[in-house]
Amino acid sequence: MADQISNTTTAQALSHSKVSTEIRVRYAETDQMGLVYYANYLIWFEVGRAEFCRQKGFVYRDFEHDTGAFLAVAEAQCRYHNPARYDDLLTIETQVSEFRKRTVRFQYELIRKESQILVATGMTLHVVLDRQGRPKSFPTSYRHFFL
Amino acid sequence: MADQISNTTTAQALSHSKVSTEIRVRYAETDQMGLVYYANYLIWFEVGRAEFCRQKGFVYRDFEHDTGAFLAVAEAQCRYHNPARYDDLLTIETQVSEFRKRTVRFQYELIRKESQILVATGMTLHVVLDRQGRPKSFPTSYRHFFL
Amino acid sequence: MADQISNTTTAQALSHSKVSTEIRVRYAETDQMGLVYYANYLIWFEVGRAEFCRQKGFVYRDFEHDTGAFLAVAEAQCRYHNPARYDDLLTIETQVSEFRKRTVRFQYELIRKESQILVATGMTLHVVLDRQGRPKSFPTSYRHFFL
Amino acid sequence: MADQISNTTTAQALSHSKVSTEIRVRYAETDQMGLVYYANYLIWFEVGRAEFCRQKGFVYRDFEHDTGAFLAVAEAQCRYHNPARYDDLLTIETQVSEFRKRTVRFQYELIRKESQILVATGMTLHVVLDRQGRPKSFPTSYRHFFL
Repeated sequence: MADQISNTTTAQALSHSKVSTEIRVRYAETDQMGLVYYANYLIWFEVGRAEFCRQKGFVYRDFEHDTGAFLAVAEAQCRYHNPARYDDLLTIETQVSEFRKRTVRFQYELIRKESQILVATGMTLHVVLDRQGRPKSFPTSYRHFFL
Repeated sequence: MADQISNTTTAQALSHSKVSTEIRVRYAETDQMGLVYYANYLIWFEVGRAEFCRQKGFVYRDFEHDTGAFLAVAEAQCRYHNPARYDDLLTIETQVSEFRKRTVRFQYELIRKESQILVATGMTLHVVLDRQGRPKSFPTSYRHFFL
Repeated sequence: MADQISNTTTAQALSHSKVSTEIRVRYAETDQMGLVYYANYLIWFEVGRAEFCRQKGFVYRDFEHDTGAFLAVAEAQCRYHNPARYDDLLTIETQVSEFRKRTVRFQYELIRKESQILVATGMTLHVVLDRQGRPKSFPTSYRHFFL
Repeated sequence: MADQISNTTTAQALSHSKVSTEIRVRYAETDQMGLVYYANYLIWFEVGRAEFCRQKGFVYRDFEHDTGAFLAVAEAQCRYHNPARYDDLLTIETQVSEFRKRTVRFQYELIRKESQILVATGMTLHVVLDRQGRPKSFPTSYRHFFL
């Protein structure tokens, strides 16, 4: 119960803390429809997460190395609102929408930088695993970066 | 209302019509966690869709060519239950779970072939677009393949 | 000198030992030119290598696991003769063209299965590394698969 | 003969005209060896080419759109000197090493930005094709960007 409450509070507190980064669409990321292939958005979400970490004060590479923990993806979801095209400059807005003992949820917005048109929204849910793939608690030394 | 009912009926009728295909995990599809990178599951879903079409009696390439219509992805979702690893042989079970005038929804199950362990479940929602990217109705000459 | 000679002999002996496998072009592998994006051919070469190993009697996954050795790519090359397109069924012919103490060279031919048109030819050169990334000799217990 | 001479001259003139850009290694680009998967280097070469064009004064997207011409890849080659790892910041140095009537050759150097260690060198040869895939001359309105 207390856990529920603190989670709700945390989620609200986090909602204003977006991190923004940019990517330029590669030719490799298009398909024969002339638009970006849909799986590539999940790769951009990963870029958003990495930059989220960097701007919050740590490098995700160090997180894995120092703690032996991995943020494995348990669920991913994307809604495609408007197409992204080759050479488009896109802004990725990333935020943590939920932070629990063993899971973290990120939310993403992809926006065409010039026109500010919404390209996509998405979500990834991560569970903390150790090197053997067993669930573990979020390393305490890194918790403050998310709060 | 009538539309609601017929859609429901259609969905039920389709629910038994799964198509099965196999893929072998490529080294390219792994990442440094030693497991398959999460975006690749959406590529496998596409392989599942292509084989769904083929086993239902048509080739998706011809669909695009003959009708000038594209099944653009409007939404995608994946739940990762158990990891897939390099060289695993996976079964993809694909079915249409919803077929409407301008949209089609596919559902997927990924299973490790040998152990029958569930690897992932997912969904993609598609809208029918013409070459200019405008919504259009599902081409009538191809409707029977989905019903 | 003796080493040179035995290598040359080996290369000749190996030249008749092609392994054939098939892949079907995925939508994800195309780009907005309407053809397959050029980097994907190197992924198919990897599929060819994996099937080469399997048909020679071992699984590359086990090779890494059992010996702690990796076949890291030192050089790759591809000539693109005719385009591959979405849904094409391609045959990959793979062979070892050179087998030395610390390196292995593979050669590839990609052919459209139906028309037998040559799509691409390529080569990859591999060095044997241990888990720390240091060069090592080819594990003796696996040498006979290549000879 | 005159053509041969002017080509040689051009190649020399171009050799000092490198364009530099940066990329950060994505998690998606690693494999289970813990290093970057070898096919991804060709994608980075494409990023190098796109930035080469931009810094020379045009956008490759416009080139395709305005002229109806495509720079299809006829050959690609890469030598892997030192591994690239997740989150590495890499500099891509791109230059045109040969510019002929119907072909263009690019050369690339990949360098770890911080340590200045050479990661890879490579080359791509391109032929100019029209929308139907037939060879054509390099569009005259874009020649000056390469000279």
